[in-house]
Amino acid sequence: SRELFVLTYGALVAQLCKDYEKDEDVNNCLDRMGYGIGVRLIEDFLARSAVKKCRSYSETADMIAQVAFKMYLGVTASVSCSSAAGNEFSLILDKNPLVDFVEELPAERASLCYCNLLCGVIRGALEMVHLAAEVTFLQDKLKGDAVTEIGIVFLKNTEDKKHKRN
Amino acid sequence: SRELFVLTYGALVAQLCKDYEKDEDVNNCLDRMGYGIGVRLIEDFLARSAVKKCRSYSETADMIAQVAFKMYLGVTASVSCSSAAGNEFSLILDKNPLVDFVEELPAERASLCYCNLLCGVIRGALEMVHLAAEVTFLQDKLKGDAVTEIGIVFLKNTEDKKHKRN
Repeated sequence: SRELFVLTYGALVAQLCKDYEKDEDVNNCLDRMGYGIGVRLIEDFLARSAVKKCRSYSETADMIAQVAFKMYLGVTASVSCSSAAGNEFSLILDKNPLVDFVEELPAERASLCYCNLLCGVIRGALEMVHLAAEVTFLQDKLKGDAVTEIGIVFLKNTEDKKHKRN
Repeated sequence: SRELFVLTYGALVAQLCKDYEKDEDVNNCLDRMGYGIGVRLIEDFLARSAVKKCRSYSETADMIAQVAFKMYLGVTASVSCSSAAGNEFSLILDKNPLVDFVEELPAERASLCYCNLLCGVIRGALEMVHLAAEVTFLQDKLKGDAVTEIGIVFLKNTEDKKHKRN
């Protein structure tokens, strides 16, 4: 049963909104917390999913969307590749259980990425299997978008990382 | 899968430990958050468990320990009545999944009731079915006790409540 989790997550976001005035700071904090969680969660995921090593970014994105999302959130996401280089993917969620109890963001929190923890979790977990990535929300139903879309950009090498970060 | 929940709960407790210096303040905050969650969770519980109205405090305690704990934490607790008046109960957990990733409390956090959210959840949920209760941790494996024990005292009337609060 996910309800206790979803409500507890809501309490966490509410606490951070008390702690930080700026949405950006809340978003960063959620991402940072998620990173720490992903770093620990990957071990559990590898042990229980018994998946084989992914051979491509595309396989990795599918694994996250189909297996990991199902395991931890009870839903799957659809995946589309969004770059010719084959290193950018979108995970699209029709239903996001984490927002089950959220009707809409308050007007003064319009820039809040409510589920930003998830981006951090994915980033942290990927880093533990030696895949550097940038993970961000591209669309969010809570903000009026038609779907919820998480973008993953796999960073192929250090140069790439530097480029993306600057 | 409960791992994501358990790790997210850990992040919440860690954040509160940053926010509040005193363990007591963290404990109170967790209890308060839990209360808000319980108030909302009860509806989900009643809808999905399809339980009938409990006729006694004893039945209510069993319902929490056997049905609610199983539904939201994946474990059951054993129940013992600890007062001749029949309004005090202990829920005893051999295994507490919420502390799966916690080895021990840091020395400077010796008074932290790490799982205090649960007390608040139970208190809030009971209040919504018109049962006033005080819910506290009596023993905690994290603090070196042999088991984890949650005490529930049903407050029979307003006098009782006043008495207990003073």
